[in-house]
Amino acid sequence: MIALVAALLLAPVVPSSLAGALPSWNEGKAKSDILQFVTQAVTPGSKGFVPPQERIATFDNDGTLWAEVPTVEVAFTMHRLKALAEKERALREKQPYKAALEGDHEYLEKAGPKALLELVGVTHGGMSPDEFQQEVRAFFAAAKHPRFHEPFQATAYVPMLELMALLRDNGFQVWICTGGTQDFVRVISLQTYGIPPERVIGSTIKIEWEGADKGLQRQKQLARVNDKAGKPVGIQIHIGQKPALAAGNVKTGGDIEMLEMVRSREGLALLVNHDDAEREFAYSEKNGESLTAAAEHGFTVISMKKDWKKIFAFDRKGSAGP
Amino acid sequence: MIALVAALLLAPVVPSSLAGALPSWNEGKAKSDILQFVTQAVTPGSKGFVPPQERIATFDNDGTLWAEVPTVEVAFTMHRLKALAEKERALREKQPYKAALEGDHEYLEKAGPKALLELVGVTHGGMSPDEFQQEVRAFFAAAKHPRFHEPFQATAYVPMLELMALLRDNGFQVWICTGGTQDFVRVISLQTYGIPPERVIGSTIKIEWEGADKGLQRQKQLARVNDKAGKPVGIQIHIGQKPALAAGNVKTGGDIEMLEMVRSREGLALLVNHDDAEREFAYSEKNGESLTAAAEHGFTVISMKKDWKKIFAFDRKGSAGP
Repeated sequence: MIALVAALLLAPVVPSSLAGALPSWNEGKAKSDILQFVTQAVTPGSKGFVPPQERIATFDNDGTLWAEVPTVEVAFTMHRLKALAEKERALREKQPYKAALEGDHEYLEKAGPKALLELVGVTHGGMSPDEFQQEVRAFFAAAKHPRFHEPFQATAYVPMLELMALLRDNGFQVWICTGGTQDFVRVISLQTYGIPPERVIGSTIKIEWEGADKGLQRQKQLARVNDKAGKPVGIQIHIGQKPALAAGNVKTGGDIEMLEMVRSREGLALLVNHDDAEREFAYSEKNGESLTAAAEHGFTVISMKKDWKKIFAFDRKGSAGP
Repeated sequence: MIALVAALLLAPVVPSSLAGALPSWNEGKAKSDILQFVTQAVTPGSKGFVPPQERIATFDNDGTLWAEVPTVEVAFTMHRLKALAEKERALREKQPYKAALEGDHEYLEKAGPKALLELVGVTHGGMSPDEFQQEVRAFFAAAKHPRFHEPFQATAYVPMLELMALLRDNGFQVWICTGGTQDFVRVISLQTYGIPPERVIGSTIKIEWEGADKGLQRQKQLARVNDKAGKPVGIQIHIGQKPALAAGNVKTGGDIEMLEMVRSREGLALLVNHDDAEREFAYSEKNGESLTAAAEHGFTVISMKKDWKKIFAFDRKGSAGP
């Protein structure tokens, strides 16, 4: 009994300043895990205290911070590929461009990741970083999500924006750690998420310095893929320490290693499960490895359907009717 | 005459808040270029105005922020090599380890960069990031500069610490962009320069995720060399935009490309010239390429002898007598 009272006295209490936090989250384990984590992180002496210099949070982007059906960067790649095929008509007869332009999924599936990387290299390379930024800006200014009919940036999840704000208010650095290419996401990260470009970790296109006159030039190939086991590597390269919190999602197993990294220091690992066909999408993973890893390593699973009161900022009844 | 008056009225005046800045700098072109740059950078409407989001400054480390005779990381490499050769005596008979252990410079010169990279790989790899941090910490706790008999961190240049403080006070992000390995410099960057680990860009050792149990492990080889043309590439990877100010030094030509990158946006490029044998060291470059590039691209050359009133924080008459 005394031990219980002592434990209660020692247990950090969610401070009143956090009481109104995360308004778009329903009460439940996910919200409670987050508030517990933040409360302990900032409470000196608590077992979950995180020294200010270690308050690092990394978020996957596609499917964790915004909708990934379709993957935004795939839409950009197709947009660029069509533009390239206008100028260079021979591309239309050459694989894997032909298959991509004609939507020949069977060919692309068979051709595997090598063909996809080639498509990314050709559409993302062959220009300076400034020229690439302009291409990306032009894409985002015009493109709309095919189902929600809103700009892609508007598919940012409101509950995640609230979580990032809460973390910042409590002294956390908030980073993106995406499988997408980093110079693509950097163009919209500040405006969409309040994350400055230097805090975006992603896959990289090979870049070379071509002399004082030409400066940096993006080559037509990838340098590093920031997915799966590449995510902890990217975090080490860019940040140099284990995050105290990370968030990813169920779809390809791409975030498992990043979440394991966080758990290896007893941090909070969040895994978004897309189970809301009505308001967003419902999809799962072929082999269910992300949810298996969640059970094994203690990730907190977020059900979009149950944990999120609201998904998008735009007002649309049911926000995603057929 | 009217044009002259108009020009004078429009020219940004160094604000009084900067009047006492850079106390360890003598009056002269270098100090005046810096104060002009900072004044314009923060004066909206001036031609040198730098929007807050672009206030990025990158500093080389060895020879720019602290003494590089001997190169600190070479001292660490030798320290580690000796420790390895204690455990694994066969190394003493194997090249290039034998040559390094015996100080056989002739062999190493002939063997070229490949041998040096091998030495760095073996001494810096084969352990986790945490283990490496502990090795580096232990080294810095015990090692002393052979001439100044102070810890290596104490050879940080006071005028550069003042410059970094001035930049921070005016909204600049201050980064290191070093040819040294980034996880080595990160261990001391906060304490020595006030630069947090995530703002250190350097050469990288190959790192791999070896599963949830073993986590990240440093391999025995380099992944990326952040020197010469590698510096603008490192800046693009980590920051994603051109710095408005960069500083490097004369010795190997390693900073030329970074400084050219800054000049390509009309930023301030600073080049430290080691011409003070009495207080620090006097050395030049075989082919003089850094000073040639300075003349061609408009880098501001800093003479340690003429521009710096004081070099180190430690009090030592002449600070470096024989």
